[in-house]
Amino acid sequence: MAFDMTPILTTGQIEEFLAREFPQIHANGPVFECIDVAPRTATLRFHPNEIHLRPGGTVSGPALFALADVAAYVALLAHIGPVALALTTNLTINFLNRADLAPLDGVARILKLGRSLAMLEISIERTDTRTLIAHATATYSIPPAKA
Amino acid sequence: MAFDMTPILTTGQIEEFLAREFPQIHANGPVFECIDVAPRTATLRFHPNEIHLRPGGTVSGPALFALADVAAYVALLAHIGPVALALTTNLTINFLNRADLAPLDGVARILKLGRSLAMLEISIERTDTRTLIAHATATYSIPPAKA
Amino acid sequence: MAFDMTPILTTGQIEEFLAREFPQIHANGPVFECIDVAPRTATLRFHPNEIHLRPGGTVSGPALFALADVAAYVALLAHIGPVALALTTNLTINFLNRADLAPLDGVARILKLGRSLAMLEISIERTDTRTLIAHATATYSIPPAKA
Amino acid sequence: MAFDMTPILTTGQIEEFLAREFPQIHANGPVFECIDVAPRTATLRFHPNEIHLRPGGTVSGPALFALADVAAYVALLAHIGPVALALTTNLTINFLNRADLAPLDGVARILKLGRSLAMLEISIERTDTRTLIAHATATYSIPPAKA
Repeated sequence: MAFDMTPILTTGQIEEFLAREFPQIHANGPVFECIDVAPRTATLRFHPNEIHLRPGGTVSGPALFALADVAAYVALLAHIGPVALALTTNLTINFLNRADLAPLDGVARILKLGRSLAMLEISIERTDTRTLIAHATATYSIPPAKA
Repeated sequence: MAFDMTPILTTGQIEEFLAREFPQIHANGPVFECIDVAPRTATLRFHPNEIHLRPGGTVSGPALFALADVAAYVALLAHIGPVALALTTNLTINFLNRADLAPLDGVARILKLGRSLAMLEISIERTDTRTLIAHATATYSIPPAKA
Repeated sequence: MAFDMTPILTTGQIEEFLAREFPQIHANGPVFECIDVAPRTATLRFHPNEIHLRPGGTVSGPALFALADVAAYVALLAHIGPVALALTTNLTINFLNRADLAPLDGVARILKLGRSLAMLEISIERTDTRTLIAHATATYSIPPAKA
Repeated sequence: MAFDMTPILTTGQIEEFLAREFPQIHANGPVFECIDVAPRTATLRFHPNEIHLRPGGTVSGPALFALADVAAYVALLAHIGPVALALTTNLTINFLNRADLAPLDGVARILKLGRSLAMLEISIERTDTRTLIAHATATYSIPPAKA
């Protein structure tokens, strides 16, 4: 990688920001927990509950999509700060293995952080076994900072 | 298109199947309504409510993902019947315009219906203005029918 | 669709531009032909030859990718003119049916034309039978015009 | 990752197979070189030449697509052997940084190797500087082995 990046927000600052700005992601209980930020990456833990399940007890596609999207958003937030509101323009998700009702980690890695576009990849792994559940790539549009 | 397909389920049969097998998609009220099936296509209307909104009153990415995924699933169901449980293997979604709190139509079109794989494209349009909100393509794995 | 667009270049002007600026796409003979432009869309015909084939006589994935990418580029060019050089930032392609050695049409449709990003979908169909061979969606970054 | 895999072909065996079965990938000179196989991964080096360039001296999108696709195919081949012919069903590629005329490494990693579907991710990096040029994910369909 040609760029070097250091996060400017801590996990605590990220959780405060999410709770203040995105209260609805916790509408069904405190499901997301930012457990790590590091250069170019962030990890978001997801604690699914009954409402996130499909028949058969599998965590649903939209719940996995939300984990990928929020993990990537958090990784961006950690590196560019809360000034600009990044918007998802594109997300591709591959579903690899079924997810039972157990915590999952969304590990987001910044592939590119440009002036107006950022691209990330996200691995969703089961916290206890590290089984890979899904993999996503996403593009975010970064609006120009207001003067 | 080289193939010709006729749906084998009606909109009413699809709604009965969803209500019986996927009660949780109506956990927050009856948000999905199958309004049309026709050769190679199906249309699912989504009635978003407060729980589907992001700050600023925009329908969230996971809610749009769910609409695309369920619309595609319904189009498949209408053409292959409820015998086999199709699984999403891949979904790519592009977000085009912000969606306000208003009904949205997910129009799914079958691009390919093979023996073990199906591919579809889905347009998400605002019901009243027909503004294109998002576009998705998805691949489904169709398990072999049980003897 | 909420926007209305009229092309500002003709098929002849597009072919002149491609021949002048992208001579290498014709390095193996005149394989691309712009056969139509219309509001929000353009059609590029591809005449494959032996060099584009995989074993078994199938048109290769990279050749289909190139058709999708150039068709989308041409649709953009027709609507925004040759002033700005659009760059592909993302392309997702689904391969639906094998393509024999016969002409193919790449039909590109603009889904969104924003200030700095454009999104398109592209259908690749066999010219004679209209069999759908592949389907792609792509995002292009449009650099700011130079003053 | 829940699965453990050991390659069953060497880099030499892979190159022999490609030269015999896919002579056309070397039609413009010996551009691909398999430099490594290891559990779940393979690395393919690409030596671009003038024919792979766009105006401005940038390696073209179709050339990067081909590198991603062949690198993923090689990783699969190394792990399942040459018995079955895997077919690309889906490929998503993100273009991150421009590629000058210099060798590139396509590093493919198997995310899932199922009975009939395989999913991989591919990083394309400049060999000398390790700059990330593009990132792709791809799905391959694995036909049933003939009896």
